[in-house]
Amino acid sequence: MRVVELIRRKRDSGELSRQEILELIAAYTRGEIPDYQMSAWLMAVVLRGMTHAEISALTEAMLHSGEVLDLSDLPGRKVDKHSTGGVGDKTSLVIAPLAAAGGILVPMISGRGLGHTGGTLDKLESIPGFNVNLSLAEFRRVLDTCGCAMIGQTAEIAPADRKIYALRDVTGTVESQALICASIMSKKLAEGIDALVLDVKTGSGAFLKNIEEAADLAKLMVETGQRMGKEVVALLTDMNQPLGRMAGNAMEVAEAVEVLSGGGPADVRELCLHLASWMFYLGRRVKSLDEGKQFAVGLIASGQARQKFREIVRLQGGDEAVIDDPGLLPHARQTLGVASASDGYVAGIDCEQLGWASVILGAGRERKEDAIDPAVGLEFHKRAGDAVRRGELLCTLHYNQAARVEQARRLVERAYRIEPQKPAFLPPLVQRVIGTPTELS
Amino acid sequence: MRVVELIRRKRDSGELSRQEILELIAAYTRGEIPDYQMSAWLMAVVLRGMTHAEISALTEAMLHSGEVLDLSDLPGRKVDKHSTGGVGDKTSLVIAPLAAAGGILVPMISGRGLGHTGGTLDKLESIPGFNVNLSLAEFRRVLDTCGCAMIGQTAEIAPADRKIYALRDVTGTVESQALICASIMSKKLAEGIDALVLDVKTGSGAFLKNIEEAADLAKLMVETGQRMGKEVVALLTDMNQPLGRMAGNAMEVAEAVEVLSGGGPADVRELCLHLASWMFYLGRRVKSLDEGKQFAVGLIASGQARQKFREIVRLQGGDEAVIDDPGLLPHARQTLGVASASDGYVAGIDCEQLGWASVILGAGRERKEDAIDPAVGLEFHKRAGDAVRRGELLCTLHYNQAARVEQARRLVERAYRIEPQKPAFLPPLVQRVIGTPTELS
Repeated sequence: MRVVELIRRKRDSGELSRQEILELIAAYTRGEIPDYQMSAWLMAVVLRGMTHAEISALTEAMLHSGEVLDLSDLPGRKVDKHSTGGVGDKTSLVIAPLAAAGGILVPMISGRGLGHTGGTLDKLESIPGFNVNLSLAEFRRVLDTCGCAMIGQTAEIAPADRKIYALRDVTGTVESQALICASIMSKKLAEGIDALVLDVKTGSGAFLKNIEEAADLAKLMVETGQRMGKEVVALLTDMNQPLGRMAGNAMEVAEAVEVLSGGGPADVRELCLHLASWMFYLGRRVKSLDEGKQFAVGLIASGQARQKFREIVRLQGGDEAVIDDPGLLPHARQTLGVASASDGYVAGIDCEQLGWASVILGAGRERKEDAIDPAVGLEFHKRAGDAVRRGELLCTLHYNQAARVEQARRLVERAYRIEPQKPAFLPPLVQRVIGTPTELS
Repeated sequence: MRVVELIRRKRDSGELSRQEILELIAAYTRGEIPDYQMSAWLMAVVLRGMTHAEISALTEAMLHSGEVLDLSDLPGRKVDKHSTGGVGDKTSLVIAPLAAAGGILVPMISGRGLGHTGGTLDKLESIPGFNVNLSLAEFRRVLDTCGCAMIGQTAEIAPADRKIYALRDVTGTVESQALICASIMSKKLAEGIDALVLDVKTGSGAFLKNIEEAADLAKLMVETGQRMGKEVVALLTDMNQPLGRMAGNAMEVAEAVEVLSGGGPADVRELCLHLASWMFYLGRRVKSLDEGKQFAVGLIASGQARQKFREIVRLQGGDEAVIDDPGLLPHARQTLGVASASDGYVAGIDCEQLGWASVILGAGRERKEDAIDPAVGLEFHKRAGDAVRRGELLCTLHYNQAARVEQARRLVERAYRIEPQKPAFLPPLVQRVIGTPTELS
């Protein structure tokens, strides 16, 4: 294999064969191809794109660079859910136990916060004692015991992706639908799942702010998963404002417990029921999405979903008492309110800026080496379209470090656009479903 | 400086400031930026291009990464000539002594053969004893003594270009007008010249086969040189067939001596007079190109140009006897003729294939580490438009290694297109002049 020839071909908009991509990635993972050749190839991919066949081959190459879980000895359908990242998105904390309570096996390998968005692992770690660093053997044991386990990526899973992602991060080659798709799908397919529900965020708080770009990525991921023999659907969901009332790790755990207990904000509950109904449908537990939704509602009402979360927390070393008493979760010492400067309506929210404000308070990382403060975050009092009076609170900052609060406050203040008229149009929470089996579309 | 930010900006078709480019190149040359970031940036440059201001800044950065000769203590105008590379292009061997004989200082730093094209250094080294590896101090001494010196790039000249070129070679980032322009111009401007005549080749034997691409590169180089305060013109010249009758190092030296002696093939003589007249014009030795041409013709007729070449050869350690007796140059032991398979006219020549045939015989390098055979090469008997009878010789291969001759023969055979009709159009040798001062255009 002449690597320069492969770089030149991609540079000139040509296509690489499956075999060429498999060899390229395998040789790079073995350290036989230098970073400087891989980064040139990655930049050519960013600017020239990849065909669907190339993306499938890249996904396959990264998937098989490490261990692929074989869960076939565990009875039942294995279904996972993955989100492309948003602000206040705590749905994984709800639907993983909810789906497991309904008989689905949920082998969830998640990530940490990235940029302005939160991460499931950081949220789980705000529960005292919760261990996300299980070995694959422990992961399998917890999964077998209670139907769900939630961990971070291990060294065995898709090492090619880890190596390539680290290179992309420092060479300006993150922003590629093809590379994003292969990175996500290779890790998810390594979980040994039968089906996958993707939550692709779009709007001011998403990485892909434009809905057509988000739809393209969703289609790519669905098609890539389907080519690999998995059932995959993608929900395109609105991220023009935070999901729910809380953004911040412990604050989101508390809100997820509210939803698992039958309460919580309407939007979080609605999206969780949507995602869960898809998981039940693809998991062959129900015959329709309506039935799936009723099934999920029942599992919440009966307390089984909440009980399942308690079980997961206990099996992964966490303090299950937090579920009955969220007061045991870390709390910020101080709060600061941001009020509206005028009467009117919340006409628009720069949701990414709210995410960055939360990062600045310590809920996320500005640099990789930064520590997370599990207690801090934002509490939202108004949603898009809500009427607001001058001086009325829009958002409360929960913080521990006074030095950081002013910068965060300014971001929050600027993130809300208040106008005299009620906005004519508010996007629906679920904007589109991609990959729907025909009978449901 | 955040390198990732510079990579991302270029990736997104943005422009880098002069200061950013200067810092980027300086930091890379110092080893503070890893190759994998530079190669990603280079690929973004290949695919997104650079503005003229960026190219000037890149040229400036590479120029000042090493020593820039200051020849201001030597009286007279310093003018050099550079060719983008062709097959049989021995003009440097003629015009460097010719211009020096006419009172121009010619500080010529040349390259070796690249790909299918020959290199001035390889040709000079076919003269027994000729030393192209002078130190800059020796270079200056020879230049001062006889008005011309011809050497290879030294470690002191444009080290950034050397480092970047090595990276481009293995990362598929050679093919960029911006990068080619900056690479050539940084090295030429480091020679301490006042003016430069560029010979930009176009046609089947050139790197840029399309005349508009060649014209674009020529314009870029002229403008970049002019921005740096130099007088620069570019001649776009035809490379749809080899220049002259010989391709091969010693064979080309012999042909150059023929031209310096008043003979030689008409096309080589014509192009040399063109290039020399421009050098005399930009060197303020003449008031018009016509006058320059007459001046050059006189210097050849009087034997002064040939005598100057003898002087250069002697001062650089070469055996000056070869000039009177080309039989002292290395000769290949065997020859093989390639004849026409039909009656007709030479309608077209794939000149690049002739170049590769010559490389295969050993006149150039297939790999960097290959040794050159100074004796071997091709002798052309027919030019484009010439009538040819079946069985009449088109080309003679001069070779030493029988194992290689068959592959070369096949390339030569296929390079000639013989058709029944005489071709209607043959491109002129000098197709366009770019950067002409107004009074001459």
